[in-house]
Amino acid sequence: MLQVQALFLYDLIVVRIAIDCMGGDHGLPVTVPAAVQIAQRYADVHLLLVGDEVQVEQALKQALVQASKQAKTVQRDQFTIVHASEVVTMEDSVEVALRHKKDSSMRVAARLVKDGQADACVSAGNTGALMAVSRFVLKTLPGIDRPAIATAIPNQLGKGTTMLDLGANVDCTAEHLQQFAIMGSALVQALEGVERPKVALLNIGEEAIKGNEVVKQAAELIRQTNLNFIGNVEGDDIFKGTAHVVVCDGFVGNVALKTAEGIAKMIGGMLKANFMSSFYSKLSALIAKPVLNKFRDQVDNRRYNGAALLGLRGIVFKSHGSADILAYAVAIERAREAVVSQLQEKTVAGIENIRKECNLNDASNARCEDN
Amino acid sequence: MLQVQALFLYDLIVVRIAIDCMGGDHGLPVTVPAAVQIAQRYADVHLLLVGDEVQVEQALKQALVQASKQAKTVQRDQFTIVHASEVVTMEDSVEVALRHKKDSSMRVAARLVKDGQADACVSAGNTGALMAVSRFVLKTLPGIDRPAIATAIPNQLGKGTTMLDLGANVDCTAEHLQQFAIMGSALVQALEGVERPKVALLNIGEEAIKGNEVVKQAAELIRQTNLNFIGNVEGDDIFKGTAHVVVCDGFVGNVALKTAEGIAKMIGGMLKANFMSSFYSKLSALIAKPVLNKFRDQVDNRRYNGAALLGLRGIVFKSHGSADILAYAVAIERAREAVVSQLQEKTVAGIENIRKECNLNDASNARCEDN
Repeated sequence: MLQVQALFLYDLIVVRIAIDCMGGDHGLPVTVPAAVQIAQRYADVHLLLVGDEVQVEQALKQALVQASKQAKTVQRDQFTIVHASEVVTMEDSVEVALRHKKDSSMRVAARLVKDGQADACVSAGNTGALMAVSRFVLKTLPGIDRPAIATAIPNQLGKGTTMLDLGANVDCTAEHLQQFAIMGSALVQALEGVERPKVALLNIGEEAIKGNEVVKQAAELIRQTNLNFIGNVEGDDIFKGTAHVVVCDGFVGNVALKTAEGIAKMIGGMLKANFMSSFYSKLSALIAKPVLNKFRDQVDNRRYNGAALLGLRGIVFKSHGSADILAYAVAIERAREAVVSQLQEKTVAGIENIRKECNLNDASNARCEDN
Repeated sequence: MLQVQALFLYDLIVVRIAIDCMGGDHGLPVTVPAAVQIAQRYADVHLLLVGDEVQVEQALKQALVQASKQAKTVQRDQFTIVHASEVVTMEDSVEVALRHKKDSSMRVAARLVKDGQADACVSAGNTGALMAVSRFVLKTLPGIDRPAIATAIPNQLGKGTTMLDLGANVDCTAEHLQQFAIMGSALVQALEGVERPKVALLNIGEEAIKGNEVVKQAAELIRQTNLNFIGNVEGDDIFKGTAHVVVCDGFVGNVALKTAEGIAKMIGGMLKANFMSSFYSKLSALIAKPVLNKFRDQVDNRRYNGAALLGLRGIVFKSHGSADILAYAVAIERAREAVVSQLQEKTVAGIENIRKECNLNDASNARCEDN
């Protein structure tokens, strides 16, 4: 009886993830082995591998052989190959991706989510194209004008600061930033179980008088919601963990993220160069190896791969274009977590709640009236 | 004869720097000892210490006693105290600084530059106030609408990437960004002796189609100058040293700078925590101490303190508000270098040159026509 019930539950919670196997800098040699790793790790996952079926089949066979060599059990029936005849390259414009590659692996993966055949999709394809295609195929949620890219950035508290937008929208209005605040809060509620996430606006000073006009107006609009808005934070607060959610436009967010990646890489390089500079320093590096390895793993940005495209009628995760197998697997894992923790349902409910609150409490809120 | 000539030259190159002794988080206990350090280091420097004369006199006496204890020779006649009855606090608004504190140490220091009594001034006071006061007292250079804050950020090449604006202007037009490009290029020419500095626009992708509207227009305008414009760079390029000068609006620049500071601090903290986590790791830290100390010094952001306020009719340097003695001395040192290398003259000439070029070569350049 117990066994029957367990089987029944297992049936219920299968997570179906569509993988754009062709996207990203590396494509198949990264995406398929990463999918196999996830299948090994989670028996509840079913992976829809989207791409040229001959090439995907071959890559899957190789990856399964590789996995069996390492004595890791993985079921072939955890995979379904879905054919797509085209590939959106990293250089393709949004225009090309949207109008001229209607059978791209990226688009087919998004369509599987749209048609209810997948619970989420993952792609390492170029950001602009993925955003445009996802938006076209899936459409935005009610009350959301523009989807945003969100990810958790590691902070000093050993947790993650969720930051959005990271590059989907370069010209934002105050209303867009308000929507990002709502979506970011819903994301943290869903994925981290924080009841009232602290939401902040990224600014160049904590005082309300600082910042550009859009940010000042956005602060006003966010104050009119029922979010736990703590006001402005500065760039270094992202790493202090001052807020659960840090909101900014996509231009600023993308620059901040890449700046952080750049300096982290430089510092890592400097540390290595110092330890390699003399016989004595090399010796001390050997002695300090366990400590240095642990540190390297902590700052390894592959462990933080995978950003959510929020505000769509379906779950889409974006992997870093240059992701390797380890990093790509992390992105798939995040997509799985999002499904398991019912991100979509909770985001919709969160947005609905706030819209209701606005309508009830503040008729002067133009944004709410518009909806 | 040789001695007479040397004395004569010495007379010629005395660098007079006005110090806002009251500004910053710490004020006198930091600014005055830092000034004394600089006087010790450079016999060619004369320091005008601006602030409450009783308090400054006392602080100077103490700092000189302290210096003599360390057997460092320093001449009292390298200092002149200039009284100012008011202080602009870190919380004061631009309005207060500008209209209600007309005898602030910040303003008196700027006035000394304006009146030709000082070759440069340095302040750790609040950025908005310093910018407004400097602009009011000194005025902007011909062809420059808005001054910008510029500093050299350490890069992988072991050099510095000059970045501007870092927070003076939160809402910029394409024309402002063009002016920043011109000023940044002139700064690098003057301070680093690079003949044709590579100038880039900070963007979220290298492709010309990426970025927001202002940045796209700015690229067009910069292309119309005779600058060595290499196009767009991304956040991580700051640290790769892809360009000598990276141009952005003050909002983006300030967020990028503080984000970089934030993650650098976090990484430093993580490294330390790892080395302090167990008996073995502490032992290995002891062995690796020379390497770790050298690394710590390299990433010590105090060594990079001091940003230039470019575009004014006089040299103004801004120190970090929280600077300690070491950091504040670095900012004074930078101001001295700027004077010695004739930053002001070269910047004026650089801007003039480009304006002439524009007028000669491209009558359709609206910006140039306006000037």
